[in-house]
Amino acid sequence: MILVIHAHPYPARSRTGGALLAAIGDVPGVQVRSLYQMYPDFDIDPRAERAALEAARLVVLLHPIFWYTTPAMLKHWFDVVLVKGWAYGEGATALKDKPCLWAVTTGGDDHDYTPAGHHAHPFEAFAPVVEQTVRFCGMRWLAPFVVHAGRQLTDDNLRERAAELRRRIEEQAA
Amino acid sequence: MILVIHAHPYPARSRTGGALLAAIGDVPGVQVRSLYQMYPDFDIDPRAERAALEAARLVVLLHPIFWYTTPAMLKHWFDVVLVKGWAYGEGATALKDKPCLWAVTTGGDDHDYTPAGHHAHPFEAFAPVVEQTVRFCGMRWLAPFVVHAGRQLTDDNLRERAAELRRRIEEQAA
Repeated sequence: MILVIHAHPYPARSRTGGALLAAIGDVPGVQVRSLYQMYPDFDIDPRAERAALEAARLVVLLHPIFWYTTPAMLKHWFDVVLVKGWAYGEGATALKDKPCLWAVTTGGDDHDYTPAGHHAHPFEAFAPVVEQTVRFCGMRWLAPFVVHAGRQLTDDNLRERAAELRRRIEEQAA
Repeated sequence: MILVIHAHPYPARSRTGGALLAAIGDVPGVQVRSLYQMYPDFDIDPRAERAALEAARLVVLLHPIFWYTTPAMLKHWFDVVLVKGWAYGEGATALKDKPCLWAVTTGGDDHDYTPAGHHAHPFEAFAPVVEQTVRFCGMRWLAPFVVHAGRQLTDDNLRERAAELRRRIEEQAA
């Protein structure tokens, strides 16, 4: 099973994220868990989430970048699902060697993510928070899939990027 | 008014964070907003939070580091309180030049935050997410106050660090 953990509070307003989700939602074996829709009061069920993770052979974290990292709901998922004794620490092997693909969309363009740009840093400077969370749990960190400036993409460009994400997932799952 | 935005889901279990909060809670002019206790369902009131921010001349973000950044509740506070047109964007000046002090506690020790350590990076590698959030809103980023390995501090060490935080706040507010 390929587990897509999807975090967007208003997916209907998301052209870019919506296109990505549509492109991968019907890959054979995919299970999508849209956290904001499943848990409107942030009352994440850690056991159900852990069961889904245990059954997964590939984990995809799909979300827009909000304030340089995950939306709060996905952070809450990290906080309550990835606990000591299960996700990490002595004898914890639930996630060991599972590959994890971080698939994100940003509003900023390439220039924004430069020292002179609005965000003052390359995008990679913001990645360690999520990357090290994943690695600390023993997962295998794949090269992230990042779509910058989604709103500026033409429909064709967006279709190409979405197809690229689908290929990445199909290849990884093969 | 000195606004302390405090985010800890179980403050009674936090020796280090508790000592810091106790040391600064009675500084004249301090208002503490403990987000997990105010908003148990994550139903943050953005207007009330913005009003508190507008009245503040110093903002302190006080929390433990969970998964290399803020607990989810403080991330949710960023997501819903710091919106375009108020916190940033054309004509938005609500937070302009307000100083902001990031005051955090970590479980790891200095060695953990090295390339060979458990966290694979110096602590500073994880700071840009919060720092750039604060800076993007036009606030003044003060040198962070970081207590590593709180559980390994003696009572005396902890009292010293707490007193240091109090001094930082008093000096900044003077």
